[in-house]
Amino acid sequence: MMNYEKLHHLQQLLADQQLDVAYLSDPMTIKYLTGFGSDPVERVLALLVFADQDPFLFGPALEVEAIKGTGWPYPVYGYLDHEAPFKMIADQVQKRIANPTKWGAELGFLTVTRLRALEEQFPAAHFDFDLTPAIERMRLIKSADEIEKLNEAGKWADFAFQVGFDAVKVGQTEQAVAAELEYALKKHGIMQMSFDTLIQAGPHAAEPHGATSSRQIENNQLVLFDLGTIYDGYISDASRTVAVGALNDQQKDIYQVCLEAQLTAQAAAKPGMTAAELDKVARDVIEQAGYGEYFIHRLGHGMGMSEHEFPSIMEGNDMQLEPGMCFSIEPGIYIPGVAGVRIEDCVHITEDGCLPFTHTSKELQVVG
Amino acid sequence: MMNYEKLHHLQQLLADQQLDVAYLSDPMTIKYLTGFGSDPVERVLALLVFADQDPFLFGPALEVEAIKGTGWPYPVYGYLDHEAPFKMIADQVQKRIANPTKWGAELGFLTVTRLRALEEQFPAAHFDFDLTPAIERMRLIKSADEIEKLNEAGKWADFAFQVGFDAVKVGQTEQAVAAELEYALKKHGIMQMSFDTLIQAGPHAAEPHGATSSRQIENNQLVLFDLGTIYDGYISDASRTVAVGALNDQQKDIYQVCLEAQLTAQAAAKPGMTAAELDKVARDVIEQAGYGEYFIHRLGHGMGMSEHEFPSIMEGNDMQLEPGMCFSIEPGIYIPGVAGVRIEDCVHITEDGCLPFTHTSKELQVVG
Repeated sequence: MMNYEKLHHLQQLLADQQLDVAYLSDPMTIKYLTGFGSDPVERVLALLVFADQDPFLFGPALEVEAIKGTGWPYPVYGYLDHEAPFKMIADQVQKRIANPTKWGAELGFLTVTRLRALEEQFPAAHFDFDLTPAIERMRLIKSADEIEKLNEAGKWADFAFQVGFDAVKVGQTEQAVAAELEYALKKHGIMQMSFDTLIQAGPHAAEPHGATSSRQIENNQLVLFDLGTIYDGYISDASRTVAVGALNDQQKDIYQVCLEAQLTAQAAAKPGMTAAELDKVARDVIEQAGYGEYFIHRLGHGMGMSEHEFPSIMEGNDMQLEPGMCFSIEPGIYIPGVAGVRIEDCVHITEDGCLPFTHTSKELQVVG
Repeated sequence: MMNYEKLHHLQQLLADQQLDVAYLSDPMTIKYLTGFGSDPVERVLALLVFADQDPFLFGPALEVEAIKGTGWPYPVYGYLDHEAPFKMIADQVQKRIANPTKWGAELGFLTVTRLRALEEQFPAAHFDFDLTPAIERMRLIKSADEIEKLNEAGKWADFAFQVGFDAVKVGQTEQAVAAELEYALKKHGIMQMSFDTLIQAGPHAAEPHGATSSRQIENNQLVLFDLGTIYDGYISDASRTVAVGALNDQQKDIYQVCLEAQLTAQAAAKPGMTAAELDKVARDVIEQAGYGEYFIHRLGHGMGMSEHEFPSIMEGNDMQLEPGMCFSIEPGIYIPGVAGVRIEDCVHITEDGCLPFTHTSKELQVVG
């Protein structure tokens, strides 16, 4: 999926800022701008963009065929593991611009070591212009095409919840439940989760960043699910908390408070309000119910190609919500030693509100 | 698993280099030195180490309980999403050293943006000392404890091959085979693969960095498996290529050449030879058989906590192999449009040779 419009937008930015060349190396950015998605890890993968010349891709030799296969219409240069990638990049840049001095780069991704490698090739150049904010801004507002993929990824998360809820039984391990739902997804060709599936039963769920374990699910517990799938490069991310058997009053109370916080925030989200205001809508519900100290993370994070995008829905973020922004609304209440509840949909802002990508009921479900 | 010895080794390095403080932020390094493993993604997680004072961990508030749960005996400080992490880190550093000027950092991991954030807090400080080589060197030689975990991870890779080979049938998709073997692993509590399981049938396997697809396996094809599991933070990584039905002479030939290259290199690997020499052992076999142009990657990569460690087994790397080094030996022959073969064990260098972590037969197996 080529995104010429975005690439041209970036070229315009380079022209406006009088930048000679942009060095882009975040694999997500490269996928977004070129359609080629691959994490080269320690190898070098870079997209070089110029204001008024064709861009080129540079990467590991063993990726060159895959890059060409995406329909990338501009040059691509490969390097072998024993070759010197930054020298080769410099040679190609200098064929286009003899002495580029003003560079843009994603300083939020570029490592100091690689900055030094570029500086070594171009000792007279300046690498001060940070393209990270401009790239983030581009990726912030999703197109109709992107929202379609996010909806599709969301459907598979809903499917996974149903398989997972059906697999919950007293005595079953958290891991076995995760195994069942991931197996069902893979049988349908959904091969990648957007993050490790999280299933936590009882007090274990009070560790908001714990991991799915070999703990057995017991009767009278809350079981927290947090999961997501990847569909054509776009993710889903949703959380539900279900009951096994009867709950006591405290369990019921934290569930209902968390639910009210989630529903209230999702009903309130609309263009013009700020991210901080939306965070406060949910936080106020939880604080007024007396659980404020147990809601120890932001209300949500932006999402799209990953679950680490903008806008961040949190105190202090005065960014105004706009149509096309996509983010999670995921209040949680975690009482150490007792229980944890989190309820989450990801949504996209519309002209007058928001719509979720997942539709599994949020009313308390008793399973097992 | 605390690794006091390694932490003390690092403190000694700081003393030797007269560094005031080390800022470590690669999650793998933090896990290696503290026993706490977590990827904070866009959040800040850092280990601050001093030559003659206790270290401290700094990270997201929601990770603090998990850090304490590992038995970490030194201070840990958490920050909330709306707080300013680098200001808080600076405050803690300055309580210990009023005016630290000589810093060490992992410049191969630290981004330019975060370097600037540190420089803003400490305008008079120098961040020139790169700790990446010293950390890589520490992680290069595995302890007996680490090799035990790598052996255990290897056993699960062998288990996965058996399940996967049994699942291969004409008409079955690559994805369905992957689903079966990952499900079987998860049912045994092995929840994480070290990378996306790769299963490629027929000509598809000629794309060495392609992905498991919905292609159906056909008769008279070679099917390439590349997979690995994670066991207690340590990985396995192995490849096998199996036959479905009868093969033609070309398929048989590239299999046997690749096998000979793999076996010859694995028999040759021993202390004192260089990484480049070992690469050449396998490459010579493939080149002499006339397939040199189809072996388009290095022979192997270091591994341990990840598959992206040192030593890199490739042309130009004059690093001498030493006991405790762990790496893959994975020659491949990829003939576009025809077939791909890769055969891989990861090994650790012993006093007089090497031993593999995986033991699945490498003789051509006919399955399906």
